[in-house]
Amino acid sequence: MSSPNPTVRHATHVPAILSLIRELADYEHELHSVEATEAQLLSTIAFASPSETSPSPTTGLPQTEPTSPTKPARCLILFAPSGEPAGIALYFYNYSTWRARAGIYLEDLYVKQSERKRGYGKRLLVELAKEVVAMEGGRLEWAVLKWNEPSIQFYESIGAKMMSEWVGMRVDGEGLTKLAALLD
Amino acid sequence: MSSPNPTVRHATHVPAILSLIRELADYEHELHSVEATEAQLLSTIAFASPSETSPSPTTGLPQTEPTSPTKPARCLILFAPSGEPAGIALYFYNYSTWRARAGIYLEDLYVKQSERKRGYGKRLLVELAKEVVAMEGGRLEWAVLKWNEPSIQFYESIGAKMMSEWVGMRVDGEGLTKLAALLD
Repeated sequence: MSSPNPTVRHATHVPAILSLIRELADYEHELHSVEATEAQLLSTIAFASPSETSPSPTTGLPQTEPTSPTKPARCLILFAPSGEPAGIALYFYNYSTWRARAGIYLEDLYVKQSERKRGYGKRLLVELAKEVVAMEGGRLEWAVLKWNEPSIQFYESIGAKMMSEWVGMRVDGEGLTKLAALLD
Repeated sequence: MSSPNPTVRHATHVPAILSLIRELADYEHELHSVEATEAQLLSTIAFASPSETSPSPTTGLPQTEPTSPTKPARCLILFAPSGEPAGIALYFYNYSTWRARAGIYLEDLYVKQSERKRGYGKRLLVELAKEVVAMEGGRLEWAVLKWNEPSIQFYESIGAKMMSEWVGMRVDGEGLTKLAALLD
């Protein structure tokens, strides 16, 4: 039976998640950077355990296992009315020091090419905004590639502001090992 | 007794943390945005409990209470040889989807004006890099104000790369409440 509306859940559909991650990476011209495997996703994302089917009292979504420093991420899957996974929102919890409040950082949002223009991206963002409000959090944040004008326009249309005065810095790979050993 | 070197710890020195947060906000011309109070910091940062004095087996730092969605942040304090708190690194755990690995996002790094040029900022970054390496994490990230050239040069000198092709998006305040209710 298919329902007339899409549904959004924390679900352990790891093959579908990996497939959507790879589609997104391809769209961002970064497919070669995907090192994720199904096993690695399973061990680093806090999923709903099959036995926990009762919804969260605050968000109405199914409970998931606790987050931890090595398992900080959660993943919402949007299922099309056909039952097929059509989009994902992969996120973790961030922090606003000025407000001393937690919030949500959306690391990746992706809707399958064939399932666009149905409001699925908006639906996933709304679910995350609901979770931030329910946890009395401060903000919902994410980053977008500057050349991705259609996405920026969409995000601004639903109330997001561009943080143009900031630039991200990153240390990874060999640079990270070097930095860790810099004062040894 | 003062030791000849600075020490870095997860410590519940909330008045010192708030004082350093306010100094940083003032430096960034954002003092009016600071809503944090001592009580609010205590309830949203995962601190070391006084009874937990044994160091972590991986990082050598004292253990702290678990992180959670509403308590995602940790705070390292650097104490000068005099014993005075001289700097903080406030951080939470992020996630790289491509790698399917956790990492650290440094939300705020600050060293008191009177304690600059002693390598304290570098020391705090090295401690965080060590934690990322110990947890087999993917990357250490943070954001910097584009006009803050001296900081950008310092970060690049220790191996950080600027993520110039990305821009941050944020929904907060009234925009967040509106987004959460957009499909109701």
